[in-house]
Amino acid sequence: MTRVRMILAYEGTEFCGWQVQPADRTVQGELERALETILGGPIRVHGSGRTDSGVHALGQTVHFDCPDDRPNFPWQRSLNALLPKDVRVLDAAWAADDFHARYGAVSKTYEYCLWHERAFCLPQRRRFVWACGPVDFARMEEAAAILSGEHDFAAFQNVGTDVESTVRTVTEISRHPGPTEFESVWRFSANGFLKQMVRNLVGCLVACGRGRMEPDDVRALLESGDRTLAPATVPPQGLTLMRVEYGS
Amino acid sequence: MTRVRMILAYEGTEFCGWQVQPADRTVQGELERALETILGGPIRVHGSGRTDSGVHALGQTVHFDCPDDRPNFPWQRSLNALLPKDVRVLDAAWAADDFHARYGAVSKTYEYCLWHERAFCLPQRRRFVWACGPVDFARMEEAAAILSGEHDFAAFQNVGTDVESTVRTVTEISRHPGPTEFESVWRFSANGFLKQMVRNLVGCLVACGRGRMEPDDVRALLESGDRTLAPATVPPQGLTLMRVEYGS
Repeated sequence: MTRVRMILAYEGTEFCGWQVQPADRTVQGELERALETILGGPIRVHGSGRTDSGVHALGQTVHFDCPDDRPNFPWQRSLNALLPKDVRVLDAAWAADDFHARYGAVSKTYEYCLWHERAFCLPQRRRFVWACGPVDFARMEEAAAILSGEHDFAAFQNVGTDVESTVRTVTEISRHPGPTEFESVWRFSANGFLKQMVRNLVGCLVACGRGRMEPDDVRALLESGDRTLAPATVPPQGLTLMRVEYGS
Repeated sequence: MTRVRMILAYEGTEFCGWQVQPADRTVQGELERALETILGGPIRVHGSGRTDSGVHALGQTVHFDCPDDRPNFPWQRSLNALLPKDVRVLDAAWAADDFHARYGAVSKTYEYCLWHERAFCLPQRRRFVWACGPVDFARMEEAAAILSGEHDFAAFQNVGTDVESTVRTVTEISRHPGPTEFESVWRFSANGFLKQMVRNLVGCLVACGRGRMEPDDVRALLESGDRTLAPATVPPQGLTLMRVEYGS
């Protein structure tokens, strides 16, 4: 048995998220099917974490165990020949037996792309942005500074998973220029994210940017730990998993 | 009767090109249908020119004649509410009665996006690039310099339209960085383009860039006027109509 580590990119538009499901098209499902074609038997792929339906990736990291010895097998080329065009293997390499895509992850980076022009959204960008309209960046950055650091993010976690602790350390929230003049890109890095946490953080930032929430109230929201007090989860298509980092 | 001039963006992926056709989904067809909903009767929209099936636009310019007097009608907002999401009105304004989107155009600019990484194409970019693989930019730029200027472009015209002259003046062929490190963008400006001329020019540049054609042979190809001697037309999805300019 030898462990293989891979980096994937996918466009989430036509996927019901990462995790394999009986009836729906998922990234994990497509990947496992392609690997079964190569290996001749069922195989389990482990991702660094789930991504929701409609969320994209440029750096999802996964691993699987190859049951037989194939020292020179061209994993990237073979899988890219078998996979549908909306998921690609960017890199594949043999990994140590104790590498684990999920449990070994020490940091993740997501980006969320906002569209600010009210009169139109460019068709070429519609699958990759949320058209939130005009916002006040300074107010959003004030809120971002409050959200950064180690906090209990219970107010930013949607129901559906059991986690031992809702404390996470957000190491970066920063704004970057988008691919067009109508967009802004918000980068989030943390030692881990709760369920839909990035989309809930963006909801909070945009609420501040629209003047519907005061940046100063973000502190009280964090302290409340009450999801029902926080702004709604924003749509998935603005979100991309950029990078997963592992301990050396 | 008052003339309206509009700028459109569309993603060509799901369109059978610009020009209205009885059975197929076209940009002109969708636009005329939306206008008929507003105006209550058939209407003809004139584009600056046709774009082929699969070709995109960020600055297609069109005009139509509104039969009645609607001085404050919100054309952009109304059309964007009625049109499908893969075509958007970026601007709409009243125009002089003698403005003509096609006959008044004095210059057009297209961009063609090449993907150079052999091992994969990012899913997020697959609808907007042609994955031609690695190329030698210096050789392409040598060929571009020869193609620039006033020439008879008969060897770069596909059959299907009657034009009086195949002489055009190419005022710019330039290379620009793409949205990812794996891409290059090639900008083409001219006082007009023949049928599929940009895609044939790109075919010639890439043939030079791949070492399958010598830049010096481009001069002889131009002089031959023989389409059968030129490299094949490249795929449509890398091409975007960026801008149309009009005399003042």
